Amino acid sequence: MLAFRPVVLVIGVLVAALGVMMLIPMCVDLLSTDDVHRADWTAFATGAIISVLAGGGAAAASWGPITQISVREGFLLTAASWLALVVFAAIPLANGELGLTYVDAFFEAMSGLTTTGATVVVGLDDAPPGALLWRSMLQWFGGVGVVIMAFAVLPALKVGGMQIFKNEAWDTSEKFIANATQYSVALSFIYLFLTVVCFLSLWAFGMPPWHALNHALTTVSTGGFSTRDASLGAFLTVGRAPLDLVVTVFMLLGSLPFGIILIAVLRGAWKRLFTDSQIRFFIGLIVALTGLIALYAYRQLDISVFTALRLAVFNVTSIMTGTGFATSDYDAWGPVAIAFFFCIMFIGGCAGSTSCGMKVFRFQVALAALKVYARRLAHPNAVFVARYNGHPLTDDVFVSVLSFFFVYFATFATIAVLLSGLGLDTLTALSAAGSAIANVGPGLGDIVGPAGNYASLPDLAKLLLSAGMMLGRLEFFTVLVILSPAFWRG
Amino acid sequence: MLAFRPVVLVIGVLVAALGVMMLIPMCVDLLSTDDVHRADWTAFATGAIISVLAGGGAAAASWGPITQISVREGFLLTAASWLALVVFAAIPLANGELGLTYVDAFFEAMSGLTTTGATVVVGLDDAPPGALLWRSMLQWFGGVGVVIMAFAVLPALKVGGMQIFKNEAWDTSEKFIANATQYSVALSFIYLFLTVVCFLSLWAFGMPPWHALNHALTTVSTGGFSTRDASLGAFLTVGRAPLDLVVTVFMLLGSLPFGIILIAVLRGAWKRLFTDSQIRFFIGLIVALTGLIALYAYRQLDISVFTALRLAVFNVTSIMTGTGFATSDYDAWGPVAIAFFFCIMFIGGCAGSTSCGMKVFRFQVALAALKVYARRLAHPNAVFVARYNGHPLTDDVFVSVLSFFFVYFATFATIAVLLSGLGLDTLTALSAAGSAIANVGPGLGDIVGPAGNYASLPDLAKLLLSAGMMLGRLEFFTVLVILSPAFWRG
Repeated sequence: MLAFRPVVLVIGVLVAALGVMMLIPMCVDLLSTDDVHRADWTAFATGAIISVLAGGGAAAASWGPITQISVREGFLLTAASWLALVVFAAIPLANGELGLTYVDAFFEAMSGLTTTGATVVVGLDDAPPGALLWRSMLQWFGGVGVVIMAFAVLPALKVGGMQIFKNEAWDTSEKFIANATQYSVALSFIYLFLTVVCFLSLWAFGMPPWHALNHALTTVSTGGFSTRDASLGAFLTVGRAPLDLVVTVFMLLGSLPFGIILIAVLRGAWKRLFTDSQIRFFIGLIVALTGLIALYAYRQLDISVFTALRLAVFNVTSIMTGTGFATSDYDAWGPVAIAFFFCIMFIGGCAGSTSCGMKVFRFQVALAALKVYARRLAHPNAVFVARYNGHPLTDDVFVSVLSFFFVYFATFATIAVLLSGLGLDTLTALSAAGSAIANVGPGLGDIVGPAGNYASLPDLAKLLLSAGMMLGRLEFFTVLVILSPAFWRG
Repeated sequence: MLAFRPVVLVIGVLVAALGVMMLIPMCVDLLSTDDVHRADWTAFATGAIISVLAGGGAAAASWGPITQISVREGFLLTAASWLALVVFAAIPLANGELGLTYVDAFFEAMSGLTTTGATVVVGLDDAPPGALLWRSMLQWFGGVGVVIMAFAVLPALKVGGMQIFKNEAWDTSEKFIANATQYSVALSFIYLFLTVVCFLSLWAFGMPPWHALNHALTTVSTGGFSTRDASLGAFLTVGRAPLDLVVTVFMLLGSLPFGIILIAVLRGAWKRLFTDSQIRFFIGLIVALTGLIALYAYRQLDISVFTALRLAVFNVTSIMTGTGFATSDYDAWGPVAIAFFFCIMFIGGCAGSTSCGMKVFRFQVALAALKVYARRLAHPNAVFVARYNGHPLTDDVFVSVLSFFFVYFATFATIAVLLSGLGLDTLTALSAAGSAIANVGPGLGDIVGPAGNYASLPDLAKLLLSAGMMLGRLEFFTVLVILSPAFWRG
């Protein structure tokens, strides 16, 4: 039997907490000197009241001790809480000065909490500060939510090969909740610390504090929402400090496995950061891909080697980690760049980070699977064992990871075809679908590219892309399992 | 130790046999009443002499009994013989009246022997009959080669999940060669029989015998080469018999598992054709997809329900089975049709047929894997076993099939990106890459679409697509295993 009570209780508490958080943008609006912006405080006040009442009511109605959460309840809780938070987080965006419909607000809130960064807001430059901060906060919450989920929930649920990150210390389920809580608090502190350092760095490098705060929230979370229509490009003027390189550093930090950072901090095991297989592969990929596209940009565009490298490392990091900040329109770099950025957006960062996409460890495991498979084909009678970070990789892990890729491509193709059916052109449909499930943000082409905006898409396309974002962020299986008949059978 | 002698011997015999086959188009050219066409006989005579000498020489130098072929030699033989046959089959096309460069001729021969059907020949309507027949013959040889390979070689090599089609009777390796030869001869007879019936049907329905012969050779092999620039469309005029429906029937027959047809014929077990899981799934897919696109075409274009159904069943069958005949330019049906045909070209027909693509059984196994995986996630302590045609599916099979999908998409993406790098636009690059590895033939868009031609692509693109065709036809792993270091270690 599924125990719904603890699920409703936790979701209720989360929604109520979200409502309390709405008081922050409300206060920011109230402090605004602009009359129109100040008036937007009512949207957040309304949202806060609705969320606290609904969430608090649900929590009160299901109050009681939570002793144990089964695997199935874990799936239900993860998927349902994400959806519930988006539903309520959209309320202040729908009622406010931005004038969004609820569908648009839902898309924006989903894009925020999944740290995607695709936006339907036209005119960020003149948007009320409360709404801007709320968007940034949603990405920040989404980022910490993902880190905790990847560390405490997904390994236990064995989603898409995440079981290889299962900490042996948790195997006894009584200790699980206590340990998970402790770890989660520790991870949140690291996340907060990185955000503060990012904020101070951006400020020190000349970004005004208000913008530095917002961008710090959306950089460490690899989200990519900006306070300006021109994204980060608005802050880069000739002769100014290289803010894009500062952002690159923190996008990279946000893409590292927070669990390893935690161990490094707690035990002083800094060496782990350099010996971890996933981190090495990730950094190696960033370096290799940056070199490739820098060479191309240098030969293609009339720019210096330094400018080419700077453009390359920023854009490769921004797209590959799923952040989605833009400093220049790489759409204009020609078909090779378009194909390149289209492909790397699927890669993602490390598992256990705020980053998005397929995650580099899955490529490592898939390559290991292929290697073992090729050996088995050539030498049918020999036995081969692959290892990852020293742990043996079983067929069980291979099936999990390869299934993940299969579902990833199947979902991508389905969404792209459906978007085509809604009248989008090939490049827009393909890149919007890919960008949504990889939680990147911008797509390619004039409409949804780095210089474009999702506002003009039909409502059905926005809902479809919202579903894609949620599937991608929750690693597909967390959602798909709940939709399978086997889940509901006892 | 790898025994190269038997590998060289078999390839030598095959190349010499190919040379002898060149005498057929040579004679056809000699019988031509057109002086220019008649002169083309020298191209085939030259090709025949080179092939017989080279092949015969290699065979003579490595003459001796073949007692046993190991798995590794099986891989080497399969991949190398395919490549060697293409290299020699291209010679008469390169030297003849068509005026192709060797790269173009290589592309055309690869497209022929892999039953792809992409062509670089401009002006088929005026081409010499020998060259036209040679193209058709190559597809016919390719088709029978694939059927034998899928029945006798791939299951033993365990490529991409093909081990589930392994016939238990072959488990003793002494009997393997004798049995394989017997089965291969029987399969070839069925293939020949279907081709003859196809030829007679096309003739009976009004196609001139010369064209009927060529189209019979390229229909049962799901190849798709035509004798006319307008492809099959050239033979469809208002008020004429529905030749396209006749072709549809034989494309479908060519996409059924020949092993099951053989059992049906030998043992009178016709019921197997209707109970086989793969056949049912395949026919179900054809019906469902035909219904979908017929509905779309009916609503989108100004045509009757019957015309919509006729267009739909022909094009769905032609693209899904990887034949690639065209009767109309579905590119003009709008973005939904483009996305639809782009997706279905990957599906393919049944394993053990002449058809191309991923093969429907792999989708069935992948879906079974996902089902088992979803159940395992929801109920970690229960045991689930999936079955296919009554046989249990082990993790081993799941890893094989899911690896196949992974390699398929990785190869597709790599070729598409490289094609973009050669300056092709997004739709052309994507569809040419997909069409090549799925052995379909036409891509999408103005250049390589059903109304276009591959002639204008750069040489490097043609070589890349040729590599894609060979990888797709040999189910990737047959080639990739040979490229893995493990293969060459003892």
